[in-house]
Amino acid sequence: MRGTLRAWRSRWERSRHRERSGTDRFGPPRQHAWQRPAQLVVAAFALVIVIGTGLLMLPAASTGPGETTLVQALFTAVSAVCVAGLAVVDVGRHWSMFGELVVLALIKSGGVGIMTLASLLGMVVIRRFGLRMQLSAQAETRSLNLGDVRSLVARIFIISTTCEVVVSLVLALRLVTHYGEPPLRALYHGVFHGVAAFNNAGLALYADSLTRFAADPFILLPIAAAIVLGSLGFPVLLELRRHFRQPRRWSLHTKLTVTASAFLFGAGILAITLLEWNNPATLGPMGWPQKLLVGVFHGVMPRSGGFNVVDVGQMDDSTLFVTIMLMFVGGGSAGTAGGIKATTFAVILVVVWAEIRGHPDVHVFGRRLSGSAIRQALSLTFLSMTVVAGATVYLLITTPFHLEEILFEVVSAFGVVGLSTGITPDLPTQAQVLLVLLMFAGRIGPITFASALALRERTRRYDLPEARPIIG
Amino acid sequence: MRGTLRAWRSRWERSRHRERSGTDRFGPPRQHAWQRPAQLVVAAFALVIVIGTGLLMLPAASTGPGETTLVQALFTAVSAVCVAGLAVVDVGRHWSMFGELVVLALIKSGGVGIMTLASLLGMVVIRRFGLRMQLSAQAETRSLNLGDVRSLVARIFIISTTCEVVVSLVLALRLVTHYGEPPLRALYHGVFHGVAAFNNAGLALYADSLTRFAADPFILLPIAAAIVLGSLGFPVLLELRRHFRQPRRWSLHTKLTVTASAFLFGAGILAITLLEWNNPATLGPMGWPQKLLVGVFHGVMPRSGGFNVVDVGQMDDSTLFVTIMLMFVGGGSAGTAGGIKATTFAVILVVVWAEIRGHPDVHVFGRRLSGSAIRQALSLTFLSMTVVAGATVYLLITTPFHLEEILFEVVSAFGVVGLSTGITPDLPTQAQVLLVLLMFAGRIGPITFASALALRERTRRYDLPEARPIIG
Ligand SMILES: [K+]
Ligand SMILES: [K+]
Repeated sequence: MRGTLRAWRSRWERSRHRERSGTDRFGPPRQHAWQRPAQLVVAAFALVIVIGTGLLMLPAASTGPGETTLVQALFTAVSAVCVAGLAVVDVGRHWSMFGELVVLALIKSGGVGIMTLASLLGMVVIRRFGLRMQLSAQAETRSLNLGDVRSLVARIFIISTTCEVVVSLVLALRLVTHYGEPPLRALYHGVFHGVAAFNNAGLALYADSLTRFAADPFILLPIAAAIVLGSLGFPVLLELRRHFRQPRRWSLHTKLTVTASAFLFGAGILAITLLEWNNPATLGPMGWPQKLLVGVFHGVMPRSGGFNVVDVGQMDDSTLFVTIMLMFVGGGSAGTAGGIKATTFAVILVVVWAEIRGHPDVHVFGRRLSGSAIRQALSLTFLSMTVVAGATVYLLITTPFHLEEILFEVVSAFGVVGLSTGITPDLPTQAQVLLVLLMFAGRIGPITFASALALRERTRRYDLPEARPIIG
Repeated sequence: MRGTLRAWRSRWERSRHRERSGTDRFGPPRQHAWQRPAQLVVAAFALVIVIGTGLLMLPAASTGPGETTLVQALFTAVSAVCVAGLAVVDVGRHWSMFGELVVLALIKSGGVGIMTLASLLGMVVIRRFGLRMQLSAQAETRSLNLGDVRSLVARIFIISTTCEVVVSLVLALRLVTHYGEPPLRALYHGVFHGVAAFNNAGLALYADSLTRFAADPFILLPIAAAIVLGSLGFPVLLELRRHFRQPRRWSLHTKLTVTASAFLFGAGILAITLLEWNNPATLGPMGWPQKLLVGVFHGVMPRSGGFNVVDVGQMDDSTLFVTIMLMFVGGGSAGTAGGIKATTFAVILVVVWAEIRGHPDVHVFGRRLSGSAIRQALSLTFLSMTVVAGATVYLLITTPFHLEEILFEVVSAFGVVGLSTGITPDLPTQAQVLLVLLMFAGRIGPITFASALALRERTRRYDLPEARPIIG
């Protein structure tokens, strides 16, 4: 396993090398099974969701007999597998221990699953774009084989579990020493929330999410740290682990993700701390150290942690609006975060900046962004906006809630964030089903769409004359 | 004058010819005065606004003595010059006949001004992009001279005045025959609303905008037609006038504008008619012919007519949300409409469609879109969204209104539309000043920004290796 892992690593390295001197266009793709990414990912997630829904429908899964509806089970399973975190029923109160363990297993498998699939697809894309270079250099070409995939899954499982174990133990220790919980119960709660945190699942066992810990940095900061790590994405984690102190060796992807994430976390923390500073229903009554603590915690959440320690529904409309924008962008690629992803956002920013400076080429970190990457970022963003706008219009028509609540809920679902102004359980059934679809689409849509685009790209170049309309 | 006009026309034609076989990149621009478009446009508009504000501050301009504040005068002048249409005071009640004539003159000069400046800038851009072709073909190169500009202004004045006169007479006739107004008064009202309609100004002399005519197709349809014509933009009007029945001879710009406009008008009419069909405060009580009439009228308004015949504040949140999106896109380039413009929206749609189909080049109507046009459309859209988002956050913080009202007001101001849920007069002064800035930025920002981008573009091509991050 370590052998294939090393091979994969060296392939990752080589693809980064190719990236440096790479090219952008290719002939028709060969069709391997794992090169039909959309179908594969959809099928895998759908299967796990069906199993999860079935298990949650069992009488043993809930505390009261026969009270779980299909939509409740489906919603919970999708929310867990997609590590979204919205909830129509209170996780700690509605589900039995068995139900909670099902939810935990769904979170874990959803997290590992999405990291694996997205990493695989990312590798496939990078391989496609490195292939010509490789051929022209007469280098050995190898397909990804089952061993590679197994090794990738194993590595992801190990890295994520390591993070989860560390956070879980820290949480459990704190629950024992400071809250007097019995060790086993503390361990269970620690594990559940540690796993939920690293996987950015946003589901808590407490009815009020983590509000009871609103003043405890030893609970909030480990959880926030796990969320940040999980949201960066596996490729970035892998590179950071190897070259943490050598940013110059990072790939363009890691540089963009880390820079954009730092900017977005900073913006989130700043916005929430300042906008809520005097809100009597949120940060207002707290002392300034706690304001800062909660500001940092809630500044991290929109990028798709999803826990809360103050009532999101009581936040100022301005905070909700900023949060909506942050949730839409989301976290890093091939991680447990959702949204259009940090790199997509970074690409748009870089393009705009290059245009403002009048540069015909888009340069960033010593690389030139390919036109196809720009068009894909634009397409992904536009289509995501279209999905969000369509769902928003539908919910505005069919529910009595206001734009800020609806838009917040829709973007939270599509960005698999899990924050809510509190309207989720009150939505009519067909609106909850729409949220299920949004979570599913938001989880696998951007990944499969972007890689499908990248893989389908052809060399076709008609010789049509170039033209421009008047812009603006 | 006809000579220089013919020269300009033939230059327009030639630029379209070049467009067919054109190229995209150029050396550093020569610096003529009219090639510093941003400064020129800003200065011209600022000057007219200062004069207009001064005139409106005169005691003779208002009905009561000494009751006009600086912000009221400034807001009205900016709203008129930018043909925006938002109002903090009731035009018909607050202003005297003299004040109304000032407003009318501001609307007319603002409309002609923006069409002239935008057409000039469009020509400059197209010339820049045709220049190399011209040189390589050893063709005569001539700069735009003062005669060209004069002839352009004259032609714009003639075309717009012709449209306005026709609509004004139709309206006046109807006001005399059907509403029993005395002929002079009917003519005055006809002219005011005809000019306001063609220039998409959205300011009416009646306190309730055009609500009193909500059942009268002989008033609403001519106004809607004038608004549609004005919103297409001068270059499109000129081409339509010459080749109305030969769409194959239209330039790419005209094809994109007409197609996108048809789509957006259709979407607006459909959305408003269906979403408001049963709303008891808007279309609900009407018979279905009037529902359709008002649906058509209000479907046209968001693209940036700005009149209303039903209370916009009473519309369903879903209608407001759709209207916000339509207002953001706006109308055609180099016309009196605002927004990011139909071509910008069309370019984005075309890019997304090409990506979905896996085409490496973006083809539309037998032309290949240049990468720079794509990047400019993306930049303009992103920066416009940033302006809208920033202003929205500011107003959410400083006013008690909800997201749908604020976002509607901000996009209406930035898109120089003039529709409002009714909060404009109730906003605090500094919020009204922000709206003034938004109208000003929305009027001249996209035009000057996009042409500045196009003109600044350089041939610089570093030889950096291409790279791509993971998108999505
Ligand atoms: K989440
Ligand atoms: K207007």
